[in-house]
Amino acid sequence: MKILGIDPGSSRIGYGLIEKTGQKLKLIRADTLEIKEKDPNQKLLYLAADFKKLLEECKPDLLGIEKIFFYKNVKTAIEVAQARGVLVLLTLQRGIPLVEFTPQKVKKATTNYGSADKQAVAKMVSLLLNEPQTKRLDDTTDAIAIAITAANNY
Amino acid sequence: MKILGIDPGSSRIGYGLIEKTGQKLKLIRADTLEIKEKDPNQKLLYLAADFKKLLEECKPDLLGIEKIFFYKNVKTAIEVAQARGVLVLLTLQRGIPLVEFTPQKVKKATTNYGSADKQAVAKMVSLLLNEPQTKRLDDTTDAIAIAITAANNY
Repeated sequence: MKILGIDPGSSRIGYGLIEKTGQKLKLIRADTLEIKEKDPNQKLLYLAADFKKLLEECKPDLLGIEKIFFYKNVKTAIEVAQARGVLVLLTLQRGIPLVEFTPQKVKKATTNYGSADKQAVAKMVSLLLNEPQTKRLDDTTDAIAIAITAANNY
Repeated sequence: MKILGIDPGSSRIGYGLIEKTGQKLKLIRADTLEIKEKDPNQKLLYLAADFKKLLEECKPDLLGIEKIFFYKNVKTAIEVAQARGVLVLLTLQRGIPLVEFTPQKVKKATTNYGSADKQAVAKMVSLLLNEPQTKRLDDTTDAIAIAITAANNY
């Protein structure tokens, strides 16, 4: 079973694709989509095109995505939510089941501690995937952590 | 030239289609899309289907949409923003030019006063369209006001 984790953002979207065989998890691919366009509306067009391509390439059986529930900056929250709306629509339009988790739930599921820091999450992600610890953007690591959470909670 | 105004929401989306001929504005059609689905993610699927149909029926040359910039309730703001992301994407994918306005700008453009109340906006909408004052949902009136603002600012 292939699970795609998504860390939504307005300009940078982390993704991590893992394969679950029995209880074993294996990382297939992880990176970020980077949207260069500045206009918050036009941006959604580019995001949709890149995300469609990602879904076609990854062919996930399940998609896990982070829930937005608090941002200090309302403007940022609104831009991320607009992008998330596009990501959710494209996923559901393809009939891919979608699960969502708060950042706290993802931290708790990977490190057993809901307020874990970025480093602790990165360490546990590597441990759970049986890989040497790998330097990645936080957004990519978060996306893999979401995929792991989805894999273990579905 | 046909201009579609949209008042975004998560469950109820106001729309108003007007035609501009020279400086004359005429109302063609106005109502709301009502999304019954409760799940905030699945909701986007239904919204996309209804909005696609609306765009196909209305064939607007220009679309005006309200800008979300402040909500007391962050959860509501995020749900409305997700829906707005879907509306913007579908508009731009069809190559329809899109303009956006804050609620203050719409009030100022229709009543000449940025803090006008709902009744004042409704009254001016009827005056500007040369119609007897008509009872409508606020979301519908707001959408027509957005269409008028777009028509006069493009």
